[in-house]
Amino acid sequence: MNALRDRILREGRNLGNGILRVDGFINHQIDPALMDGCGRALAARFAPTRAARVLTAEVSGIAPAVSTALHLGVPAVYARRDRPVTMAGPVLTAVAASRTKHRGTELFAAAEYLPPGDRVLIIDDFLATGQTILGLARLTAAAGATLVGVGVLIEKAFQDGRAALAGLGVPIESLVTITDMTGGRIVV
Amino acid sequence: MNALRDRILREGRNLGNGILRVDGFINHQIDPALMDGCGRALAARFAPTRAARVLTAEVSGIAPAVSTALHLGVPAVYARRDRPVTMAGPVLTAVAASRTKHRGTELFAAAEYLPPGDRVLIIDDFLATGQTILGLARLTAAAGATLVGVGVLIEKAFQDGRAALAGLGVPIESLVTITDMTGGRIVV
Repeated sequence: MNALRDRILREGRNLGNGILRVDGFINHQIDPALMDGCGRALAARFAPTRAARVLTAEVSGIAPAVSTALHLGVPAVYARRDRPVTMAGPVLTAVAASRTKHRGTELFAAAEYLPPGDRVLIIDDFLATGQTILGLARLTAAAGATLVGVGVLIEKAFQDGRAALAGLGVPIESLVTITDMTGGRIVV
Repeated sequence: MNALRDRILREGRNLGNGILRVDGFINHQIDPALMDGCGRALAARFAPTRAARVLTAEVSGIAPAVSTALHLGVPAVYARRDRPVTMAGPVLTAVAASRTKHRGTELFAAAEYLPPGDRVLIIDDFLATGQTILGLARLTAAAGATLVGVGVLIEKAFQDGRAALAGLGVPIESLVTITDMTGGRIVV
């Protein structure tokens, strides 16, 4: 995905400690055309999985999940980090840690939107430690649904996320892989 | 916007106290094709404003804002309700209350993504009391940017949001207007 790679190299900021700032086009300001292209690319890679639903976690997973779901022609569900008053019926929960968010480490989803047997594709912005995605995989398992793949915009290959997800036994796809952020660099 | 109106009448749930549950297609599970259609419709209505940027608040404003921004060909910015570690440089803040969210009532945006003089279109999922949108309008003013319009998917005309926003002096557009939710009804 050359457009995303070029944008990261041009506008991404290495904040140290492996934190990549992409606030100008993914995480605070969103470039909707770029995001649409990313969703199209992820949908093409996962078309063979015959996913029936895309699952992500609020907040930064929403835009890539909705774009991917649009191009797959399926609904997107975002797990909440707080349980809103409007969440009715049986609720699934799972634990997920996050290094850059100070909000709850629990994920909530209404069972109604993750039916048993559903083929679920997890989409998120980053694969770093893999903890959020593992939480989403636990939600999927709690639902009795079937995980069919994991797709992200950006993978930090120097962290251990891909190894942490290996046990899921599903294809893991990232549009851009960053191999090194030491010394202030961003190496793709 | 007939597709949205029909979906609300078919799947929306009146939870009482004026709270409308649209978790099946807007607020927890998103129908991406419906959302894309809503974004296209809002973009068409606001094309004459020559907006340079769409502004919304996390979480539920993100999907309609990104869809609208895609069809306008401009970036979308979502104000944060917590200040993330990646938010750098001068930060704008404004107060916004929300009845259905338990998180902070403050909104944060990096000044970098709301430049002075920018023509800003505010997009959100609901217009109810108007407090979130007023907070976004205050952010826009704090940035020295120019508010050119307010667009929402669903307006609750029985609350006082439109009156609260009248002083902004900009066009306010809603795709669906709900006039009555008393007695368990949803009247559009």
